[in-house]
Amino acid sequence: MNEKNNAAPSCPVARGIESVGDAWSMLILRDAHAGVTRFEQFRKNLGIAPTMLTKRLAALTEANLLERRVYSERPTREEYVLTASGQDFLPVLMMIGAWAQRNCGEHLARYIDDATGQEIEPIGIDAVTGAKLGTRPIRMSQLPGETA
Amino acid sequence: MNEKNNAAPSCPVARGIESVGDAWSMLILRDAHAGVTRFEQFRKNLGIAPTMLTKRLAALTEANLLERRVYSERPTREEYVLTASGQDFLPVLMMIGAWAQRNCGEHLARYIDDATGQEIEPIGIDAVTGAKLGTRPIRMSQLPGETA
Repeated sequence: MNEKNNAAPSCPVARGIESVGDAWSMLILRDAHAGVTRFEQFRKNLGIAPTMLTKRLAALTEANLLERRVYSERPTREEYVLTASGQDFLPVLMMIGAWAQRNCGEHLARYIDDATGQEIEPIGIDAVTGAKLGTRPIRMSQLPGETA
Repeated sequence: MNEKNNAAPSCPVARGIESVGDAWSMLILRDAHAGVTRFEQFRKNLGIAPTMLTKRLAALTEANLLERRVYSERPTREEYVLTASGQDFLPVLMMIGAWAQRNCGEHLARYIDDATGQEIEPIGIDAVTGAKLGTRPIRMSQLPGETA
């Protein structure tokens, strides 16, 4: 997104999207969750231009989703690993994948629980009530803790 | 994303991101979930250039997340409403918002259950086992139904 959006500065969706940036950034995070750490691996997997990849990796590092780690001293070489915040983004990626599985009408790969061998079904719930997201009316509170 | 990414064509995350397109598209969907339907409302809320908005609305309509509905016959005027597939995207947006609430360290608005007045906590789980997403090892099955 080149332009600054007008959305309320307290909107968590806008803030989250601002951090993750764009479609390439989400695909980089997906690959990072699959174990990719090095520039050349990301570049080959995604078929992304090196200049684009450099920018996206810098933005994700700046936003604290990835961090640089030295894996060779001479010469100095760095790789990119997920931070705790980057690890925490996995459920979002799985929810996007599950949405596509339900709505994009194509033969897409499925998520399999590695221990049970069963297909899993990623859904979003409210951890407080257990209700599936989207089944109960919600509103936004501007002030954190207003009603908590 | 201008370039075509090299990701496996069966990857549901890549497919989902391809449908939603970009950050502007996700903000348009967020506003649509908040009840916005008309071009001018989207434009004002988001501060997006009209040409950009036209492109994004066309792409979201093409991807079957929004559909056009005539609300005035003379002159003919159309608005954009969420399809079932677009409605189904709400949990993804809430998960992005919840990620930002946990990780972006700022005072962001909270999601409140309108009936109980309690703050809700959006999380992703596997509906089959109830396990929180990211807490058990998963793998991808290339063939739908392979192990189901």
